[in-house]
Amino acid sequence: MNQIDAMERLVNQFSCLPGVGKKTAQRYAYFLLTMPENDVKDFADAIVQAKQQIHYCKVCGNFTDRDICSICAKPNKAPIICVVKEPKDVTALEKVRDFSGSYHVLHGVINPLENKGPNDINIRSLLTRINEEHIEEVIVATNPDVEGEATAQYIANLLKPLGVKVSRIAQGISMGSELEYTDAITLSKALSSRTEM
Amino acid sequence: MNQIDAMERLVNQFSCLPGVGKKTAQRYAYFLLTMPENDVKDFADAIVQAKQQIHYCKVCGNFTDRDICSICAKPNKAPIICVVKEPKDVTALEKVRDFSGSYHVLHGVINPLENKGPNDINIRSLLTRINEEHIEEVIVATNPDVEGEATAQYIANLLKPLGVKVSRIAQGISMGSELEYTDAITLSKALSSRTEM
Repeated sequence: MNQIDAMERLVNQFSCLPGVGKKTAQRYAYFLLTMPENDVKDFADAIVQAKQQIHYCKVCGNFTDRDICSICAKPNKAPIICVVKEPKDVTALEKVRDFSGSYHVLHGVINPLENKGPNDINIRSLLTRINEEHIEEVIVATNPDVEGEATAQYIANLLKPLGVKVSRIAQGISMGSELEYTDAITLSKALSSRTEM
Repeated sequence: MNQIDAMERLVNQFSCLPGVGKKTAQRYAYFLLTMPENDVKDFADAIVQAKQQIHYCKVCGNFTDRDICSICAKPNKAPIICVVKEPKDVTALEKVRDFSGSYHVLHGVINPLENKGPNDINIRSLLTRINEEHIEEVIVATNPDVEGEATAQYIANLLKPLGVKVSRIAQGISMGSELEYTDAITLSKALSSRTEM
């Protein structure tokens, strides 16, 4: 049953993608089989080429196809580094367009349950950057969960002795949300971090 | 910005998949970039090979990597053909395991809105098969929607003069569903198609 082999192999590959189960993988596979052969080759090429061309920026750890990513290569950046967990967080923050500093991608957070300590994430090079790039402020923008908070605290403790300002992105209720449906921890944060009007 | 090119190309490719929007495509793309290079190549290979090896069965129109698919190649099949819209319907029906006939994949249904007439779907070869394979019954298992019903009716009108029995899969309430939440058309079908106990 070679047919089942090629098909099953494709379905299994799609099942590896995040959030994709067997049914969805099958749907993708059937769709690909109905596409023209050239389009399917383009699809496969795009996958291989993206993987071959894109690697980590030497400075900040974001994805790039050069030695240094386009954000790090910009001249006249503000002396601020925004620390994030993953490259996709950079994409999210870049959409805002009102941050003119650079980023630093940790590629993970400190997580004792997964045996991930400070040495397993990209923190060491952050220290070098603070000196070399004369950084004045580090904004820690890890996610507001237990691991993200712990990592933020660790970074703050590490950097404050160097005389650099360390800040954390604000936590509170999100725009457009309703108090009624907001969870208690978020409400509590929103209250304690209230700002004067 | 070559980085954006390779990345955007990959995201665009994933966005072509059914039900995949920009956000999900981005998620898939970022995931692929974190996979080992060999795994990524395997992924791309699986796509190309499935497309190269798999085509339509000469007899029934189902996907196969040979001239004739494994179901059509089986000896001692019941002289019954189950007509379905797409290859994935064959997969669904094969899971039931209590049908021992063969299939016929239409690759579409009659749909005037999409300019699809009887000649645009795989009906002609069905007529040949009925004679050659001495078929006694054709079960039309197209979906129970307007186009599926119209196609079923067309096939019935076409085949009945040939002296072959034409039947339609039963419509009614599905197992485990509740009358309370069943739509009116389904209920009406379930009533009119009631069977004696």
